[in-house]
Amino acid sequence: MLYVAPVFRHRSQPSRPLVSAPAETAVLSLLLAEGPLSRVELARRTGLSSTAVTKAARPLIDDGYLYELPPERTAPGAGRPVNPLAVAPDREYFVGLKISVDQVFGAVCDLRAGIRATAGRPLDVCTPEAVAGLVAELVDELLDADPAFRDRTRHLGVAVNGDVDRDSGRLRHSGLLGWRDVPLAELLAASTGLAVTVENDVRALTVAEHWFGEGIGTGYFALVTIGAGIGSALVVNGHLLRGAYGVAGEVGHICVDPAGPRCRCGARGCVEAIASTDVILATVRDAAANPRLTFDEVVEMAREGRPEAREAFARAGQAIGVGIAALVNLVGPERVVVSGEGVDAYDLFSRHIQEAYAAHAFGAASRCPLSLRPLPWEEWARGGAAVAIQALFPQPAATPTIGAG
Amino acid sequence: MLYVAPVFRHRSQPSRPLVSAPAETAVLSLLLAEGPLSRVELARRTGLSSTAVTKAARPLIDDGYLYELPPERTAPGAGRPVNPLAVAPDREYFVGLKISVDQVFGAVCDLRAGIRATAGRPLDVCTPEAVAGLVAELVDELLDADPAFRDRTRHLGVAVNGDVDRDSGRLRHSGLLGWRDVPLAELLAASTGLAVTVENDVRALTVAEHWFGEGIGTGYFALVTIGAGIGSALVVNGHLLRGAYGVAGEVGHICVDPAGPRCRCGARGCVEAIASTDVILATVRDAAANPRLTFDEVVEMAREGRPEAREAFARAGQAIGVGIAALVNLVGPERVVVSGEGVDAYDLFSRHIQEAYAAHAFGAASRCPLSLRPLPWEEWARGGAAVAIQALFPQPAATPTIGAG
Ligand SMILES: [Zn+2]
Ligand SMILES: [Zn+2]
Repeated sequence: MLYVAPVFRHRSQPSRPLVSAPAETAVLSLLLAEGPLSRVELARRTGLSSTAVTKAARPLIDDGYLYELPPERTAPGAGRPVNPLAVAPDREYFVGLKISVDQVFGAVCDLRAGIRATAGRPLDVCTPEAVAGLVAELVDELLDADPAFRDRTRHLGVAVNGDVDRDSGRLRHSGLLGWRDVPLAELLAASTGLAVTVENDVRALTVAEHWFGEGIGTGYFALVTIGAGIGSALVVNGHLLRGAYGVAGEVGHICVDPAGPRCRCGARGCVEAIASTDVILATVRDAAANPRLTFDEVVEMAREGRPEAREAFARAGQAIGVGIAALVNLVGPERVVVSGEGVDAYDLFSRHIQEAYAAHAFGAASRCPLSLRPLPWEEWARGGAAVAIQALFPQPAATPTIGAG
Repeated sequence: MLYVAPVFRHRSQPSRPLVSAPAETAVLSLLLAEGPLSRVELARRTGLSSTAVTKAARPLIDDGYLYELPPERTAPGAGRPVNPLAVAPDREYFVGLKISVDQVFGAVCDLRAGIRATAGRPLDVCTPEAVAGLVAELVDELLDADPAFRDRTRHLGVAVNGDVDRDSGRLRHSGLLGWRDVPLAELLAASTGLAVTVENDVRALTVAEHWFGEGIGTGYFALVTIGAGIGSALVVNGHLLRGAYGVAGEVGHICVDPAGPRCRCGARGCVEAIASTDVILATVRDAAANPRLTFDEVVEMAREGRPEAREAFARAGQAIGVGIAALVNLVGPERVVVSGEGVDAYDLFSRHIQEAYAAHAFGAASRCPLSLRPLPWEEWARGGAAVAIQALFPQPAATPTIGAG
């Protein structure tokens, strides 16, 4: 698409990681995810010496990112009192955004991804220029909520549908937004004056859940989103799976029925072709011979026990459960979180998802728990904030091509 | 099972990695996989300084693992001549074994996993004790083939079906062998006097292919084996995917048809329930009303164009292709190698595998090439040798739970 640069209010500030040494990275990331820990516990968990922990913590304490809690004795006669270290969550704030085709939703989060303020704005025209302008207003509104936000916010994290190159900040392609090759980080950095990190929305949500939610402490973790699209992202050995060609986690386009309906991707029998909320709606409209039904009405029909609606949800839940079993059998996550837009429909899906998953998870893989829960807009925006918080850390080193084990 | 210790001929030698420093590890692993490289090239590829490369290479040259090739000038006037470094493949040998239910097959490999000698023995009784005795004889036979083998072999690597805990050397369970909780590394170390590494056979084969075959230089790589069982192993960021519960790469138990036949795992419509050579044989026997047909005869029938046989292979190929597409859509390997026992049947499968894969690979994931090729016993044994070669390197550090990106 042709791209015309808007008039910018600020110049983008280059941003450097807060920590660079491996010891500082290990100490800060552990405290961010797990809360207060003693130096002894930090040493045990990171494999560092106590001296190395103390040395790594020092500059972070001096900068106000960490502080010492009052001393506590773990047991009588257990030696000298220990001062656990904790993250000062208000030391820095992060704006997280979710850009969708008809709105931009934002949140201010603290250092531990706690949501401190939210705001949303409808989007009339979904062009990069319109979004850049709207984001500038929305960020202003969010930072105006508290003078401390204005003072201590340097990073903006953006969660957006599509194929994103996080390193360059470019959105390569988004079918939903209709964008191709947009330098989104550059655009938004210019319009807000903040340092900007852009990430695919499902991956951003997965980062939030892995660092600050149900995925804490897991080396292998997966998050699946259901709704108009069905996607997932996977964490392996602590890192997001990106795929050699930028494609990974496409659970929505696994074939679960070779005789199934045609998918928008062109293939037959994809999970998404059976289980997206659009397909459920279309199926029930057809079956009920009522092309004006809304999704809420379809949910209502299913609750009332109308078979055409109940069956559509059952088939969708089965397809999703089979897809998640494939993911679990192939990758072996420690747990899977399933979250989605169709909040009100959860009770209609969930039993079928769990049953199909249990029927097709192989051997010990069936021990991987599945938790289903709704996904409000705040969570998407928090995903954006989580990738902004990641910008405090150095980027991972180049992929090793060989490793024992 | 009850386990009675046999009489041991040797005591196991504790084995330490040859290299421990990251720089030595990087230099040796790159030279093993890619062959001769100049110090300048090694520095560029590993991110080390030239001085660090020279320092890392020194003890490996002194020990005879590396040597300097004669100087070569890359171009006239291109500065002082460079002596590329190379691995001395004969500095150390490794025995690799594949243990199956009716035979043990072994190979002596050099440092770069080149096969130097092979031997196999039939197994009458498939118990751990019988295998330990047979392995001792087979290793003797292999090492007797050349005095240099006897002098310079310290490691035995074993590829075996089932759930293996490589760290402890225990085979937790193998349905094919009928074994449960066998301390296989300990047993074979005692019976052979060599240091022993045990690995699941598909994972061992994947290590061989990743380090020394088509997977060289790839960060994301997958190998799929077809035959009586259908399995796979995946490499992500240079490391084998093991799964949080020990299960990963179970492409054979992905459901590709909810209305499909019952699998031996209990679920319906698994790839293996449609595509294993046992199922193909049973299907054609049924269709031809001839319960005495052999697999070779079924292959012959398909070659002659008999529809019942052709269809069984077509259905199998389609199921395998759909399963591989799921693997590629979820994990995103750079390339996939498909290999298997049914060597003679390759031409009957391969078109259907490729077509189904192409139809269901999502977006850019379809750029991932699939190569199909036969899998002789030598290759399995070489897989065992490859995990023994890995024992020259330090084991990977504990899994980080958090990492940027
Ligand atoms: Zn699709
Ligand atoms: Zn199965």
